[in-house]
Amino acid sequence: MYISMKTLLLAFALCGSATLSAQQTPDFREAVSPCPGDSAAAWEEIAQTPRFGWGSPDQHYAQKEVARSLSKVWKASAWRGEKINAQAVVSSGKNLRSLRMDVSDLRSGRNVIPASVVSKAFVRYVLTDSLVNGASGCGYRLDKTQFDSLTVADILDSCESLDLSAETTRPLWITIDVPRDARPGLYKGTLTLTATDDEEKPFSRQLPFQIDVIDRTFPEPADWTFHLDLWQNPFAVARYYNVPLWSREHFDLMRPAMKQLADAGQKVITTTIMQRAWNGQTEDQFESMVFKRKNINGSWTYDYTIFDRWVEFMLGVGINRQINCYTVVPWSLSFDYFDQATNTTKHLQTKIGSKEYADYWTPFLKDFAAHLRSKGWFEKTYIALDERGLEETQQALDIVRAADPQFKISGAAHYYPEIEPQMDDLCMDYNDFIPDSVVVRRRSEGKLTTTYTCCSTPYPNTFLISEPYEAALLPVYAVANGFDGYLRWAYNSWTRSPLEDARFRTWVGGDCYLIYPGASSIRMERLREGVVAAEKIRVLRRSFEENGERAKLEKLNRAVRRFSAEEIGKRTGVEMLRSLNKLLNSL
Amino acid sequence: MYISMKTLLLAFALCGSATLSAQQTPDFREAVSPCPGDSAAAWEEIAQTPRFGWGSPDQHYAQKEVARSLSKVWKASAWRGEKINAQAVVSSGKNLRSLRMDVSDLRSGRNVIPASVVSKAFVRYVLTDSLVNGASGCGYRLDKTQFDSLTVADILDSCESLDLSAETTRPLWITIDVPRDARPGLYKGTLTLTATDDEEKPFSRQLPFQIDVIDRTFPEPADWTFHLDLWQNPFAVARYYNVPLWSREHFDLMRPAMKQLADAGQKVITTTIMQRAWNGQTEDQFESMVFKRKNINGSWTYDYTIFDRWVEFMLGVGINRQINCYTVVPWSLSFDYFDQATNTTKHLQTKIGSKEYADYWTPFLKDFAAHLRSKGWFEKTYIALDERGLEETQQALDIVRAADPQFKISGAAHYYPEIEPQMDDLCMDYNDFIPDSVVVRRRSEGKLTTTYTCCSTPYPNTFLISEPYEAALLPVYAVANGFDGYLRWAYNSWTRSPLEDARFRTWVGGDCYLIYPGASSIRMERLREGVVAAEKIRVLRRSFEENGERAKLEKLNRAVRRFSAEEIGKRTGVEMLRSLNKLLNSL
Repeated sequence: MYISMKTLLLAFALCGSATLSAQQTPDFREAVSPCPGDSAAAWEEIAQTPRFGWGSPDQHYAQKEVARSLSKVWKASAWRGEKINAQAVVSSGKNLRSLRMDVSDLRSGRNVIPASVVSKAFVRYVLTDSLVNGASGCGYRLDKTQFDSLTVADILDSCESLDLSAETTRPLWITIDVPRDARPGLYKGTLTLTATDDEEKPFSRQLPFQIDVIDRTFPEPADWTFHLDLWQNPFAVARYYNVPLWSREHFDLMRPAMKQLADAGQKVITTTIMQRAWNGQTEDQFESMVFKRKNINGSWTYDYTIFDRWVEFMLGVGINRQINCYTVVPWSLSFDYFDQATNTTKHLQTKIGSKEYADYWTPFLKDFAAHLRSKGWFEKTYIALDERGLEETQQALDIVRAADPQFKISGAAHYYPEIEPQMDDLCMDYNDFIPDSVVVRRRSEGKLTTTYTCCSTPYPNTFLISEPYEAALLPVYAVANGFDGYLRWAYNSWTRSPLEDARFRTWVGGDCYLIYPGASSIRMERLREGVVAAEKIRVLRRSFEENGERAKLEKLNRAVRRFSAEEIGKRTGVEMLRSLNKLLNSL
Repeated sequence: MYISMKTLLLAFALCGSATLSAQQTPDFREAVSPCPGDSAAAWEEIAQTPRFGWGSPDQHYAQKEVARSLSKVWKASAWRGEKINAQAVVSSGKNLRSLRMDVSDLRSGRNVIPASVVSKAFVRYVLTDSLVNGASGCGYRLDKTQFDSLTVADILDSCESLDLSAETTRPLWITIDVPRDARPGLYKGTLTLTATDDEEKPFSRQLPFQIDVIDRTFPEPADWTFHLDLWQNPFAVARYYNVPLWSREHFDLMRPAMKQLADAGQKVITTTIMQRAWNGQTEDQFESMVFKRKNINGSWTYDYTIFDRWVEFMLGVGINRQINCYTVVPWSLSFDYFDQATNTTKHLQTKIGSKEYADYWTPFLKDFAAHLRSKGWFEKTYIALDERGLEETQQALDIVRAADPQFKISGAAHYYPEIEPQMDDLCMDYNDFIPDSVVVRRRSEGKLTTTYTCCSTPYPNTFLISEPYEAALLPVYAVANGFDGYLRWAYNSWTRSPLEDARFRTWVGGDCYLIYPGASSIRMERLREGVVAAEKIRVLRRSFEENGERAKLEKLNRAVRRFSAEEIGKRTGVEMLRSLNKLLNSL
């Protein structure tokens, strides 16, 4: 079923916020579900008394359906230093104005965890489309009528208050950042929801919760080893906010999102060393962060001002393990440079491995290597390739190695035994196969081996139509299958109106971005949960090994081993995760 | 009458030359006249014996007409160091193959002027269109059927030999460069024409000529003061020859044409300081010779590599009096710069005099001034404007003066009393008026005042359909009316196929260029003659003044004064010129 945007984007009540900063979600016209929802009779049941209770973070609550199976109390356990998520839901038969959440301090006897560590967000709906025949998220989808559209509750809008229209549901998201110095114990707190109805009658309801803070301390993100790589698109941010690229405003607007990324364990800075590394496949094409000028005397002049500023900014927010440079093998073989003679940007069209290709890249790579060394970045910099064939990759690597044999190489690629030894950071498609022995050898050589999902994996994934737990499953899958980390190609390659319509000209909604302007998402929070689980596994394994706790280690490893692709394929992931998380907090 | 190019460009015999250099005229398919020409009977008269004789350099000989009124002998007088032109013509009823010219040494008793000082060229035909109603050369002329087309003998092709088709005429052009050390006297020589007909029968004819070398020495072009300014278009040369802009080949190909220009007394180097100063009105738009980069920190980076190389090249060929920089007031208000942030060329669209305009130009002009001073060029550099209105010009001048009050200003413009004092080099349209007193005052202030013709002056001018003497008349007109020189906006803004079709999307044929690839033209040679006449006037005036020869001075001035616009308007220019030239060689 397709309903036009005009119908969908009815004026929902806007979130009340004064001036726009990147920490705030911009005002937007929330998408309205094109699906019929519950009957009038169902809503009539809660006409006088809105329904309010704890839901599950594993569930998507439909916009026009009365939330069901809610709980009176939320109980959870957590390590010190862990962030844990909960979802409450309110459904109302009548209009509720100025919906507000308040969370009390958390108390355990004399010990207090202050309310200030709790973040609260209204979960808001965004329009998305569906998989093709339930099977693929890939391909062009220019004719939106060919795909079912629906709204999914995903945007975590941190605004203070929000109106709730009659006969709709609003999920609420709570994240508790358990202080690293909290004393273990069972903490109790309360979530209070207040509003007024159309007759100015106040509405106020409370939901209790309990957090069992156990005696384990979770490390800081900077100390995590899980290799998370979500590619950043700074160009989308400048376009969305209509600020000059690389201006102070631009960096100010990116900072919260990039800090959030660092806090999720991101290890890699996405950089570009040419225009349109992916042939402009995103709403905002990737421009080049380096300037290459071909001079009339045949020499080249390079400028790294933007590259340096972006890298320094990212290092400053705490993403400092690796710098990936896209690319020497772009998706369309067109290589930009500024031509001094004609005073214009030219594009060299040539094959990988041609003389022209080498003449273009060799002087650049030599100069770039010298620049990186002068900045002290050479060791963490990788020339990065994405999904290219064996022959092209081999030809390009020859040029890179000839320019500087010490350049590291990163690639999201199939497993090609011929070039695997050259890939310092190799990322395999979820559906691809690499022998365990190769991964083990690679690790002993200090090389990374990770996995990724993109449009071609219908499940598990981080699409909007994916179940929320799938995002948490992916890092656990990675660790369970011997990978060092997980990669996704798009942290924030936003659509034109990312808060309103996640549908794009290609791929299923949500493929291009995990966060929103000024807002996190359930998907992103759950993905972080997965990284946390992966880190817990690492921490516990080391602890059990160091302490000789072989039984515990074996129990843990047995639980982890369950997360094979085969087992996950049975769609049992949600139960597996719950049981694993329980184990990680109880071993 | 319009005849399509396919019909016109019949395969005329090509000029036999081996490898292409700029000194040589490239092979081309000579245009064939679409006009009916003489009757078969007229050609029958010369079926056995081609007609060959001295014509007049003042006449265009039609391609398909039997040349008439030819002379047996050419007599001329010349100063030592002067170049003098003659035209011979051959008309043939039958095919003549391998037409060749040879000129003997010139002898005067024991004195010899060697044949090597004589250049010979076949005058070749190019297609042109006509004035609109005989009155205007301006405006768009996209539909060529709206204009009469004809061929005009103008191209001076220096190839060694050329075939002559039956029932056509071929003018021949002779230029004698009288050595500066020649002894005065009456020199005699012979022009020999040889060919074979279709029956291999040799044809050979001789024409005598006499040069009376008088006892006056004409100065070197470098010492001329007449301010000739024909704008150069280096971009056309690179495009025509398909060589990289500003490459060594490019300069090598430009050198002969620019040396020829220097030899004609050119004083000004045409440079650009922005893209499309004239909004791309020529076949090859003017690119910028300076690179302006706006950096992400708000500063600007400028690069003058191309500007410097072009200027140094032009200084090297001997054009060294003035550097004109186009422009701060372009024909379309779009100002190019390279944007470091987006790694692309941007175009600032703004009004003259706006804050954005000042922000764009002020830092550039300051930096440019410093650069020019460091090169020792500041004193000869002019910020140049072309045909802009009073208000825009005034606003732009304010910005230029604010950036550096010592910048000189050059402008082809109407006479605006409000800004005239600010114009160090003011060029007036032929049809415009400036009071004599203003010109005199300007000269006393060291300021230049010159005149120009463009499409709007049907007569006199240098269009292809102009009479050849008009080109010679213009510099004399300039001197006679108190101007310091003459300007034309296009030395070589070639059409797509300049040797074959001079018709362009705008303006009448020949407006865009005076020379051809590898070839001079009758128009250019006659224009040079006019500059020579202007210089002779100056030399004689000074000589008569210094020697107190008041009668001669008065006689000369009386002859010069005849060249008023009013008198010229009576179309008596050709006789006036002949009589003046006689006087200049006899006073």
